Amino acid sequence: MPASERIRNDLRDILDPACVIDDPAVLARARRDTWVISVWRSLQRAPTPNPACVIRPTTTADVSTVLRYATRERIAVVPFGAGSGVCGAVLAPEHSIVVDLGTMRALKRIDETALLATVEPGLLGSEFEKALNEAGYSMGHFPQSIALSSVGGWVATRAAGQFSTKYGNIEDMLIAFEAVLPDGDVVRTRPVPRAATGQDLRHLFLGAEGTTGILTELTYQIHPLAASTEKAAIAFPSMSAGLESLRRVMRAGWRPAVLRLYDEIETGRSFAGAARDGESLLLVLTEGVSELTRVEIEGTIAIASACGGRHVGTEPVDSWLHHRNAVPGFEYFLDQGMVVDTIEVASTWNQIDRLYAGVLEGMRAVPGIMVASGHSSHSYATGTNIYFTFAGRPDRPEDLEGLYFRIWNAAMEATLAAGGTIAHHHGIGRVRREWLARELGSAYPLLAKIRHAMDPFGIMNPGALLPEPASNRS
Amino acid sequence: MPASERIRNDLRDILDPACVIDDPAVLARARRDTWVISVWRSLQRAPTPNPACVIRPTTTADVSTVLRYATRERIAVVPFGAGSGVCGAVLAPEHSIVVDLGTMRALKRIDETALLATVEPGLLGSEFEKALNEAGYSMGHFPQSIALSSVGGWVATRAAGQFSTKYGNIEDMLIAFEAVLPDGDVVRTRPVPRAATGQDLRHLFLGAEGTTGILTELTYQIHPLAASTEKAAIAFPSMSAGLESLRRVMRAGWRPAVLRLYDEIETGRSFAGAARDGESLLLVLTEGVSELTRVEIEGTIAIASACGGRHVGTEPVDSWLHHRNAVPGFEYFLDQGMVVDTIEVASTWNQIDRLYAGVLEGMRAVPGIMVASGHSSHSYATGTNIYFTFAGRPDRPEDLEGLYFRIWNAAMEATLAAGGTIAHHHGIGRVRREWLARELGSAYPLLAKIRHAMDPFGIMNPGALLPEPASNRS
Repeated sequence: MPASERIRNDLRDILDPACVIDDPAVLARARRDTWVISVWRSLQRAPTPNPACVIRPTTTADVSTVLRYATRERIAVVPFGAGSGVCGAVLAPEHSIVVDLGTMRALKRIDETALLATVEPGLLGSEFEKALNEAGYSMGHFPQSIALSSVGGWVATRAAGQFSTKYGNIEDMLIAFEAVLPDGDVVRTRPVPRAATGQDLRHLFLGAEGTTGILTELTYQIHPLAASTEKAAIAFPSMSAGLESLRRVMRAGWRPAVLRLYDEIETGRSFAGAARDGESLLLVLTEGVSELTRVEIEGTIAIASACGGRHVGTEPVDSWLHHRNAVPGFEYFLDQGMVVDTIEVASTWNQIDRLYAGVLEGMRAVPGIMVASGHSSHSYATGTNIYFTFAGRPDRPEDLEGLYFRIWNAAMEATLAAGGTIAHHHGIGRVRREWLARELGSAYPLLAKIRHAMDPFGIMNPGALLPEPASNRS
Repeated sequence: MPASERIRNDLRDILDPACVIDDPAVLARARRDTWVISVWRSLQRAPTPNPACVIRPTTTADVSTVLRYATRERIAVVPFGAGSGVCGAVLAPEHSIVVDLGTMRALKRIDETALLATVEPGLLGSEFEKALNEAGYSMGHFPQSIALSSVGGWVATRAAGQFSTKYGNIEDMLIAFEAVLPDGDVVRTRPVPRAATGQDLRHLFLGAEGTTGILTELTYQIHPLAASTEKAAIAFPSMSAGLESLRRVMRAGWRPAVLRLYDEIETGRSFAGAARDGESLLLVLTEGVSELTRVEIEGTIAIASACGGRHVGTEPVDSWLHHRNAVPGFEYFLDQGMVVDTIEVASTWNQIDRLYAGVLEGMRAVPGIMVASGHSSHSYATGTNIYFTFAGRPDRPEDLEGLYFRIWNAAMEATLAAGGTIAHHHGIGRVRREWLARELGSAYPLLAKIRHAMDPFGIMNPGALLPEPASNRS
């Protein structure tokens, strides 16, 4: 009996057989994420590994049953949230089991006193946020992918949202979790505001990209809906002047929910009416109680003005709010022979100009690049991210992947040369894997130590984040 | 040759012999922390294990040499910062090597643009803060022990400071580190503002209490000295009304640096002139730019008033600022036949009244207790801590330890019964060890997995945080 058929039969013996799916359309949907290279290969009908099946669990016990079996039989397991990842963290190997958590999507409870919401991992972000809004709350977490990504996937990738400057990133929001370990054991932590009880165990799963187990429940901090919002758009003569303004706003201690600074190319593309040629546009949005938002917007505008900024009203912020969750489909560009992608990196303020210029210069030197641009969208007292976007067109379609990896290589090398981090919030997946050792250097082996401690047989999402075990390499 | 003598001889062969100290006074100082039970046993001249020696390294290479040797020879190593811990995390076993980091105390550099300061682990907190102040900066981290604790010890215990509501706890401040692993390997991470590059490796050391290696360099976020400070003291008719006010201040999004709420006993003890009998006193201090501090103090006072608070001026805050780093010496009380200690726990807002009342009730039911009281000093959107203080006097001096552990037992049991965490910021050490499994439940084995992955032979600070390996138990 072929391996995949045996695996399906085994799983149908120990689970409700209706959870065990081998419909080719379901497999095709759940065997990969939205990494543009996976999209391209699908469009090309390139040969791909075939997972044994997709499991649609309805309970933690189902997940435990699957993992206990998989560990015993040494079968690879790939957790699948909503498939919105863009780095190739989901790419199911031959004969693997894909666990599609889209069937575990209950919002279990909201505690309005402790400001906590407990939810299953497969719920889409936008559905979660909508339910919270109806109760008078918000999570404050708005990744551009909110309508496409799952609340569990956010933890796996260490997500960041558009309002992060006020509300923090996913690691600041996750309060407690339930997870199934690779051996099938279920672990739960309790929601406490802060503890000094050994290492913070949330960090075994945050950023693990599915390599340490499967999250089956998350308790997130929530916020009352903001009473007041203030907005401003400010045009700067250069990206560098805008970055200096961001630095000074953060240094002063202001924390507007949104601080987005677009370089001249992106400003020209998206806000042509609001700024002059060559200007960089900063969008500011502050929310909270009105006494705070009023002084915060004034304080931010005053600093921006001192950095050469010109206040141009609020319309660009409204325009952005209207369009902010539009996620471009890679297929549209691929159909025209172009490859488009985004690369988010980050650096401390002392080297941010060098990082911004270096990455653009590196990408633009790659023959076939059409355009490269960037914006800053997540600022900290110590530094900020730059979210680069590029488009390239290879001479011949068969060189599309080659061009793509040359552009990525240029961006990663320039980021490391400028002392930045190669990934701000999309994670490693497969696209960044070869640079991770360079970024972490002497600390890199610690990731493998964690992984081995949690999953000694390496069954969990092999090939994501870290290299596949030598015996599995194809 | 006795084991300790052999260890000293070996270490004198591979290190500068001047680093290897067996002077009894040095050993006595570095073999334990300030856990009151250790202090008591010292005063009683109780028999204690004798470590082989104290090492005073001057470089990371020295630390590496010691750990490589200790792993090869399976010798216990106890990292020693400044010995200010109050939970018994430092209690050096027989024939162990104590690594006293007090000789590694350089402030290596301050980056005024990236707002980072890099420092060696043995520097005292107050010396670090003074040097930062002279450069126009502050760390924003003010544990009561700042003059007694080391900047590396803060990471080991997951410290929290008095200004945490604005500046966060130690995990929010540590940006990068260098550490020596138990096998002698040196790992360094890079300072980046935020990354999605696998698990956050800082959390292998934060809260590890020295069980995963020895930190040899820390890069902390710093802040420009605040331009403005506003203060207010507010008296509430009850602790419960004060806690409700704290909850609403946090819920509104205000983040005053200091929010300290004392119950009626502590208010009577420390602020008798400022409040009436039976009242609970809240101290508020907000700092930052003046536009923020003005509205933040007004917003906080308005919420407190709505909760029944009575604004009583600023003098109690000034008084607290003057005395806030006075740390009571346990010896004074022990000499009088009394045992005094503090127990900091935390809970979400939905059960904080139950926790506060339950812990006091539990402690007060222990025969021999003289007084028990509490204050809240670290608030979050989701909950707050309660920092309890107790004093007890046993009928007979030989029952002092028995009384002490009965009181602790009552506090820990009541905390767990109320759904709280047994440790907010002092850590586990030895005093809380037996309750850690209860608190973490199904997640408890993960701590041992981390430990074993980092230190397979269990040489690092055995007996702190987790039980000693069975073979070592005495």
